[in-house]
Amino acid sequence: MGKYFVTAKNESKSKTIVKARHFNIIIDEPTEIGGTDFGPNPVEYLLASYCGCINVVGNVVARQMQLNLKGIEIKMEGELDPAKLMGKPTEERAGYKKIFVTVIPDIDADRETIQKWLDAVEQRCPVGDNIANSTPIEIKLG
Amino acid sequence: MGKYFVTAKNESKSKTIVKARHFNIIIDEPTEIGGTDFGPNPVEYLLASYCGCINVVGNVVARQMQLNLKGIEIKMEGELDPAKLMGKPTEERAGYKKIFVTVIPDIDADRETIQKWLDAVEQRCPVGDNIANSTPIEIKLG
Repeated sequence: MGKYFVTAKNESKSKTIVKARHFNIIIDEPTEIGGTDFGPNPVEYLLASYCGCINVVGNVVARQMQLNLKGIEIKMEGELDPAKLMGKPTEERAGYKKIFVTVIPDIDADRETIQKWLDAVEQRCPVGDNIANSTPIEIKLG
Repeated sequence: MGKYFVTAKNESKSKTIVKARHFNIIIDEPTEIGGTDFGPNPVEYLLASYCGCINVVGNVVARQMQLNLKGIEIKMEGELDPAKLMGKPTEERAGYKKIFVTVIPDIDADRETIQKWLDAVEQRCPVGDNIANSTPIEIKLG
């Protein structure tokens, strides 16, 4: 079982420092939307998290399929409507409506085998699962 | 409408460099599980992303509720079973089963008002929405 834990402290209304083990993750918002731009913003980190997961799982799956995966490039994008975040009346959800992912593996195999590899990566990726499927959140005041 | 975009390139089977605007995000896995530990791992970044979002939304909601929010601390944890990632037969999902969040705001208000603030933050947070609710992912080979 893998247990993961982070703690965070805000430094301003846009900037947050998150501690994960011995790492500090700096999160901020661009100046255009009132931030101080000391780091990527939360929704960029969400995409980044999924990119990192695709690499790790991609390599595990490639090894198990006995494929020589020499490298991976990924492009990822999503669109969201800030209306709900801003408290405006809206029918739209708060987060990304949909996430578009393009995976470009450098791999010695035919297209059909590479597609099988990608299907397995999609199904077995923890971050992808937490985004694609509903995940219970228990949030309370401390 | 907010559009967000990242590109990623792996440097090894565990290490990924993600570019988000002018930022590089370094993702890796701990050495204990075969990584090189140059950065937090993907599922730690997922939690970090949600922490950053709670700060931003927490400040927007506080301003709108005319509350003086002087600071926020957050603790977040989740547990996942790596069986599915590893391709073992399992009934468990790949990602976090549940995410536990404790928010400690430094705010001048009574408990009931602070709980209202937290409820609004939970509902209006983009990253929380993408985790708590199902989000379509379109993944293809490039």
